[in-house]
Amino acid sequence: MPTTEKSPPQKRPGGRSARIRAAVLEATLEELADGGYASFSLESVARRAGVHKTTLYRRWGTRERLLLDAMLERARDVVPVPDTGLLRGDLLELARSVAASLAAPESEAVVRAAAGIGPRDPALMEAVRSFWDERLRLDGAIMERAIARGEARPDADPEPVIEAVLGAVYMRLLVTARPLDDAFLEAVVEAVAGGIAAR
Amino acid sequence: MPTTEKSPPQKRPGGRSARIRAAVLEATLEELADGGYASFSLESVARRAGVHKTTLYRRWGTRERLLLDAMLERARDVVPVPDTGLLRGDLLELARSVAASLAAPESEAVVRAAAGIGPRDPALMEAVRSFWDERLRLDGAIMERAIARGEARPDADPEPVIEAVLGAVYMRLLVTARPLDDAFLEAVVEAVAGGIAAR
Repeated sequence: MPTTEKSPPQKRPGGRSARIRAAVLEATLEELADGGYASFSLESVARRAGVHKTTLYRRWGTRERLLLDAMLERARDVVPVPDTGLLRGDLLELARSVAASLAAPESEAVVRAAAGIGPRDPALMEAVRSFWDERLRLDGAIMERAIARGEARPDADPEPVIEAVLGAVYMRLLVTARPLDDAFLEAVVEAVAGGIAAR
Repeated sequence: MPTTEKSPPQKRPGGRSARIRAAVLEATLEELADGGYASFSLESVARRAGVHKTTLYRRWGTRERLLLDAMLERARDVVPVPDTGLLRGDLLELARSVAASLAAPESEAVVRAAAGIGPRDPALMEAVRSFWDERLRLDGAIMERAIARGEARPDADPEPVIEAVLGAVYMRLLVTARPLDDAFLEAVVEAVAGGIAAR
């Protein structure tokens, strides 16, 4: 990839490109955590990352695409799809990973910024939605494995189950401001995976 | 209640006080829908409601208390605790009421404003939390009635069930930007109330 910065001759372009990308995505999350979404721009991220802004324009184009890339990277790093061998274990692990990642100021800032904006920024919402379509599809593997093991009903719809568990987590953070402690995560997983119907 | 406005002599003070309260709470939601939380103040609400600002200071004291009062009033009006005689019916009714109320721009603005702010405003978060503690306690009656009817397990914890269903709704609005349609509400209620465990 051509850039406006001088490449150190001892490094291959792929390695340098990957390092720039990592530096920019890290700067993106830091910039959001510090200033919120309002002051977030390709210019401010370029300054923070020490990269020329034309590099960001060429590679990401818009701040929405950059934000989405940073969120996807963060989500891949910190919220893997769990595979404990048990449905309850997987759902609890997933809920704990999300709660832990939301305890990081950059992640909380990204989520609050997106929640505060909503339909006022359709391009951002579209980026957020495509991120979550992919993420929930991946998380759906938890249910598919539980069905394959005979733990979950074969006709159970995977994504609403994931959305009920994670929704309870996000609702405490963004809506109710109630404590996001482990006892709550266990109670939600018990309600969803254990089932509440009388036997 | 003494006010700085002149009372029309033909009205009793209680009636006038209730009319002022209704006008101020309506102006609160309109002001939030128009300008968001950043520009929201007792002064701006007083102007919109055509009431002297000292009335608002005397009765509500802070913008957080005024906002909480407006949210509580709105929630009482538009999101009653359902009692259909069936757990699934109650949960679906509740999810539909919340989704419908969030379709109103003022409600959406209140929720997005609170979600975007979070820990930066501890007084607002405390107000939001006490609103939801009360609201979820009231909604818990849905589970208590289901247990009494023998529909739900006697040891089921009511509030996490409500939070899983409503969390899925709020998550679509505030986090994933996925469509908040009736098919989704039904799928979530089916997952939570129907249970996903293999029989």
